[in-house]
Amino acid sequence: MEKLQAFQQLVERGIEKIPLDGKPTALYEPLRYVLGLGGKRVRPLLSLLACDLFDAKPETALDAAIGIELFHNFSLVHDDIMDNAPLRRSKDTVHRKWNPNTAILSGDAMLIKAYEQMVKVPAFCLAPVLELFNLTALQVCEGQQLDMDFETIPKVSIPQYLSMIELKTAVLLASSLRIGAMIGKAGKQEEERIYNFGKNLGIAFQLQDDILDVYGDPGKFGKVTGGDIVSNKKTYLLLKAMEASERIPYKKEELMQWVHAPQFNPSEKVEAVTAIYDHLNIRSMAEALANKYYQEALSALEHIQANPEKKETLRTLAQNLMNRTE
Amino acid sequence: MEKLQAFQQLVERGIEKIPLDGKPTALYEPLRYVLGLGGKRVRPLLSLLACDLFDAKPETALDAAIGIELFHNFSLVHDDIMDNAPLRRSKDTVHRKWNPNTAILSGDAMLIKAYEQMVKVPAFCLAPVLELFNLTALQVCEGQQLDMDFETIPKVSIPQYLSMIELKTAVLLASSLRIGAMIGKAGKQEEERIYNFGKNLGIAFQLQDDILDVYGDPGKFGKVTGGDIVSNKKTYLLLKAMEASERIPYKKEELMQWVHAPQFNPSEKVEAVTAIYDHLNIRSMAEALANKYYQEALSALEHIQANPEKKETLRTLAQNLMNRTE
Repeated sequence: MEKLQAFQQLVERGIEKIPLDGKPTALYEPLRYVLGLGGKRVRPLLSLLACDLFDAKPETALDAAIGIELFHNFSLVHDDIMDNAPLRRSKDTVHRKWNPNTAILSGDAMLIKAYEQMVKVPAFCLAPVLELFNLTALQVCEGQQLDMDFETIPKVSIPQYLSMIELKTAVLLASSLRIGAMIGKAGKQEEERIYNFGKNLGIAFQLQDDILDVYGDPGKFGKVTGGDIVSNKKTYLLLKAMEASERIPYKKEELMQWVHAPQFNPSEKVEAVTAIYDHLNIRSMAEALANKYYQEALSALEHIQANPEKKETLRTLAQNLMNRTE
Repeated sequence: MEKLQAFQQLVERGIEKIPLDGKPTALYEPLRYVLGLGGKRVRPLLSLLACDLFDAKPETALDAAIGIELFHNFSLVHDDIMDNAPLRRSKDTVHRKWNPNTAILSGDAMLIKAYEQMVKVPAFCLAPVLELFNLTALQVCEGQQLDMDFETIPKVSIPQYLSMIELKTAVLLASSLRIGAMIGKAGKQEEERIYNFGKNLGIAFQLQDDILDVYGDPGKFGKVTGGDIVSNKKTYLLLKAMEASERIPYKKEELMQWVHAPQFNPSEKVEAVTAIYDHLNIRSMAEALANKYYQEALSALEHIQANPEKKETLRTLAQNLMNRTE
C-alpha cells in the first residue's frame, strides 16, 4: 500500500525531528537509543490514518502521533525495568545497557517529551485530546500494575486477563485512532466507532503476541521464543491450558509440575509445555479468540461513515498486524 | 498571616479532593501515602499567591497548583529510588515501604495525575502554561541527572553546582509562581519578574537545605542530620570546604581522608567533617551566598507592579522559608 508507506515515512521523519540533543547527555542518550531501535510505529500510523479517514490533512495529527509513540516507548523502558527484561527488539534494554536509575529518569524525560508533542495539537481540540491522553496513560499504568499483580495471584480468570490486556495494550491503540479522529473533526459517534475498532484490534493483537511468544519464528520475532513459558507468565495460553486440562488430570498434573518446578532446563520446559498446549489444542483456541476480537474490530470499522477506499487502508493495516510473524 | 493560612487550607482541601481511589489498589495506595505525608506545600501556595498578586481569584490557579504539588511528589518518589533514600518526611520512602517497581509505576501514575490537573487550567492560557510546565519538568529531570553525574565526577565547580540546584530545585518554585501569574493575567514583564523572584529564592532555599543537613536540629529536620557528609554528597559546603582548604594543606588532607575513607563510624565522620567546616568558616560563607540569592529574590519582588500589601505576603513567605529550622 502506497499510502501506508507514505505515512510510515511521515512518522519516521517526524521522529527524527524530535529535539533530543539536550544536556546532560546521560539523560537524553537513552531516548535516542530507544527511538533508534525502530519498531513498527503502529500507533502513530493509526493516528495519521484516522485523521486522514475523516478527510483532514494527516500532517495535522503528526505531533500527537509522535507524542503517542514517545509515550509508548516510555512505557516500554519502565516496563522492561519492572519485568527485568534483558532484550527489547533484539537489543539490550536501557536498564541493562546503562543502569536502572538511568532507565527510570530517561523514561520520565521521555514521558514529559510525549506531553511536549501533545501540547502542539490544534487549539480547538487541545483540552479533549489531552484528557483522553491522560486517561489512557493512567489505564496503561493500571494494566501494567494488574500484570504485575497477576504474577503473585494464584488464580487469574480469563476475563481478568482480557481486561488487563485491554488496559495495558488495547486502549492505547484505540486512543491513537480516536485522537487522530478528533483532530480530523470526526464527530463523537465516529470517534467512538474508531475507538472500538482499535480496542478490539488491540486485544486481538495482544492475543496474537501471546501466540507468537510460543509459536513465533525466533529469528523473526525480536524476543526469545518461549519466554512466557519459562517465566510462567499467565498469558491466555497458560490460563486456557489450566482450564482445559481440568478434564485430563494427568495433563493438568504434568503442566503444574512444570509451572512449579524450582529448577529446570529452559528449552526442555518450553518444549514440554508447548507439547501440552498442542495436546490440548490451545493454539487454535487462542487463534479463534483473537479472530473473534479481530472480526469485532472489522465490524466497528465497517460502520464508520467514511470513504470506503480509506477504510480499506485501515483494514489492510489491521490485517498485516494479525498476519505478522514477528 | 491570615492569608497564608487561608491559602494553605485551600491547598490542603484541594489535595484531599484529588480522586485517588482508582483500581488496582497497589497502584493508587502509594499516591495517597505520599500525599498524606504532608510537607510544606510551598509550590502550590506560591501559585495561589502569584495569582492573587495580580488580583485574579486565587481559586482559578488551584488546579494548576495541585498539579505542581503532584509533580513535585512524583519527583520525590523517583529521586528517592535513585538516591536509595530510606526516609522521606521521617517515614519510609515508597520503594522501602513497598518495593522499587511499585515506586516506579506509582510515580509514573502520579506524574500523569499531575497533568490531569494541569489540563484544567483556564483555556485562555492552557497551551502556554503546559509549555512552561513541560519545560520545567524536563529541567527538573536534567537537574536530577546532573546531581547523579556529580557523584562520579571527581571535580565539580561551584558554578556547576549552582546550575544543578537551579535546575533541580529552583525552576519549579519559579514556575509555580509564573504559572499562577499567567492564570492571573499578569503580563509578560511581571511574569518574568516573579519567575526571577522564585528562581533566586529557590537557590537560596536549596543552599539553606544544604546548611540544615549539617547544622539543622535532627528532631525538627525530617531527615538524618549529616547524611550529606556521610555520603560525600558534593553540596556547596563540601565543595567550598575543598576550595577553602587549598591554603591549609593539613586541613585539606584531613578532609580528603574522611572523603576517601573506605570504612568509618558515621557519627565520627559527621563530627570530624563538621569541625573542619567550622574551622574553615564554611557555614558563614554558605549563609552569605544564600543571603545574596535571597536579596536578589527580594529585589525582583520589589520591582513587580502590584499591590504592596500582597507583595508583603509573598515576602513573609520567603522570609519563613529562609528562617526555617526544618
